[in-house]
Amino acid sequence: MKKSFLLVSAWAVWSVTAFAWSFEPLPDVPPIPADNPMSAAKVALGQQLYFDKRLSVDGTISCNSCHTVMGSGTDNRPVSVGVGGKKGGRNAPTVWNSAFLSVQFWDGRAATLEDQAKGPIVNPVEMGMPSPAEAEARIRAIPGYVSQFEAVFGTQDPVTYENIAKAIAAYERTLLTPHSPFDRYLKGDKTALSEQALRGMKTVEKIGCTACHTGPDFAGPPMPMGQGFFQKFPIFVDHNPYVAKYRLMEDDGRFNVTHEASDKHLWRVQTWRNVALTAPYFHTGSVPTLDEAVRVMARSQLGKTLTESEVQDIVAFLNSLTGEFPVQSMPRLPQTPNRTLTEK
Amino acid sequence: MKKSFLLVSAWAVWSVTAFAWSFEPLPDVPPIPADNPMSAAKVALGQQLYFDKRLSVDGTISCNSCHTVMGSGTDNRPVSVGVGGKKGGRNAPTVWNSAFLSVQFWDGRAATLEDQAKGPIVNPVEMGMPSPAEAEARIRAIPGYVSQFEAVFGTQDPVTYENIAKAIAAYERTLLTPHSPFDRYLKGDKTALSEQALRGMKTVEKIGCTACHTGPDFAGPPMPMGQGFFQKFPIFVDHNPYVAKYRLMEDDGRFNVTHEASDKHLWRVQTWRNVALTAPYFHTGSVPTLDEAVRVMARSQLGKTLTESEVQDIVAFLNSLTGEFPVQSMPRLPQTPNRTLTEK
Repeated sequence: MKKSFLLVSAWAVWSVTAFAWSFEPLPDVPPIPADNPMSAAKVALGQQLYFDKRLSVDGTISCNSCHTVMGSGTDNRPVSVGVGGKKGGRNAPTVWNSAFLSVQFWDGRAATLEDQAKGPIVNPVEMGMPSPAEAEARIRAIPGYVSQFEAVFGTQDPVTYENIAKAIAAYERTLLTPHSPFDRYLKGDKTALSEQALRGMKTVEKIGCTACHTGPDFAGPPMPMGQGFFQKFPIFVDHNPYVAKYRLMEDDGRFNVTHEASDKHLWRVQTWRNVALTAPYFHTGSVPTLDEAVRVMARSQLGKTLTESEVQDIVAFLNSLTGEFPVQSMPRLPQTPNRTLTEK
Repeated sequence: MKKSFLLVSAWAVWSVTAFAWSFEPLPDVPPIPADNPMSAAKVALGQQLYFDKRLSVDGTISCNSCHTVMGSGTDNRPVSVGVGGKKGGRNAPTVWNSAFLSVQFWDGRAATLEDQAKGPIVNPVEMGMPSPAEAEARIRAIPGYVSQFEAVFGTQDPVTYENIAKAIAAYERTLLTPHSPFDRYLKGDKTALSEQALRGMKTVEKIGCTACHTGPDFAGPPMPMGQGFFQKFPIFVDHNPYVAKYRLMEDDGRFNVTHEASDKHLWRVQTWRNVALTAPYFHTGSVPTLDEAVRVMARSQLGKTLTESEVQDIVAFLNSLTGEFPVQSMPRLPQTPNRTLTEK
């Protein structure tokens, strides 16, 4: 009873805060699940796995192939290219700051980064491994991995699909881009945003974008991990030329997960962080530029046709959400042993 | 006259040294061409280009895709997979320590790393760009690259195919693996090699491997840059079961470059540095393990069938040539601009 009272109070406080101050800087640390604490060794292991193409059936695709950490955290393609040149069904979302999202994938079918990491490895059009067991066997055959799993997880037979996913998720929780001009502005540097970006910032509030694109990652209000913030897209479909032009309704979205009619065309609200780097846009990847994405959203979600200067102001604001990408070391991937080698 | 006398003298001194001491540690610095001096900014630019898939026609392949610097500097495949899943004709040689080689490619068709870098970008089964001009245009369209080319090369219109190759080659000249057990042994640490490795070291001299696999990279005696050290492979073909089994003579090797009959089945002598990491072996990539590669070489080049303990000793020695891989920063790749973005 007491607990639920506290939760209600916290909600009320949050609501008031949210109305008082729509904009929040990116926190320094993301939520960390209790069952997957961070450690430097785990992050280092996860980084190796993230870049390791041996987790794909034919050794050509790693997590990084589609979620490129040297760049935008996406592959900047409409849809990704998986094993054997196969095309994915939806645009690859960015891995940068994905640790702040309360659900993963466009349709929210994974509650955590751990669950997300288990998907592409065995997806036939992505990394194409026939089963989790075969992915484990690949990694278990590499002594340089086994010793790390033992050190990190400390259990008997630690090379499990669960632990592969945990290590990858731990690495992904380090992929944060703080100190964007927007964050610096919020923290007191009033010169960090141009006049145009400031106009854009006011416009997105005024016209209603921030009703959904709120919170520190602009992907919705804070939610318990695993409980996503979904919205219908597109809402305004009548006489909306973008629906056909960009194939916005060919995919049923969250309905494919829940099979509930009310979830048709519902999608996780996307982050605005680094959105200027992640073209092309939407689940279709069919919209090539950010200004066009702004026009499509205003028309489809708010029923508004923006002036060209409003579009450019918003684009300037969205550009101010490009953060600082941390310097990382390049991993060394442990060697697949030549089984006849007897020496290190 | 005086100069040529000095050169002859230097050669004589080298010959004596070589005979007196077959084994040499890896030098700290490789040869640097006078027209492509090293600089930190050039290396950083080259590293970005090396990892940039936008230098391939469909954006799926970078230099690193086949010459993986997070690993062995190869892709550990028989032959590489290029754009559209196309297969290459020969096994990808390692990029590590390639700066010490006097010619590049299996058939020595490139004199320098600069020349080598120009090949795969426009090779239809590798990165598949239609022309050098189109590769230049790709890079020239990325402002974050243009500013770096201007800073590094300081010329008008510096984004040229020549300069792309120069930057990549400069980066590759940093990819050195010193401090192998073998190098530490030569420099005085007599515990660096096991008894077995020491036996292998004596065996490769005794049976004649080091007649060709000499010099600090074991790829032949020091040669002027561009003048390769080529040998026929296989030499002993009668009753040699490996010739058919591993398809050793289906490719004419250097003959394809010179069209001289005497160059049939001539190949650049391969480096032994990190050879334990670069399976599968030979231009065919048809030999999966290092011990089998040792058997094939002894039979095919020296007409010898080794005992199993000789094979294992040599493998132990070859393992001692695995060096230390330097820690590198991961590059940030400059963004392909959304042409409508007006702000940074």
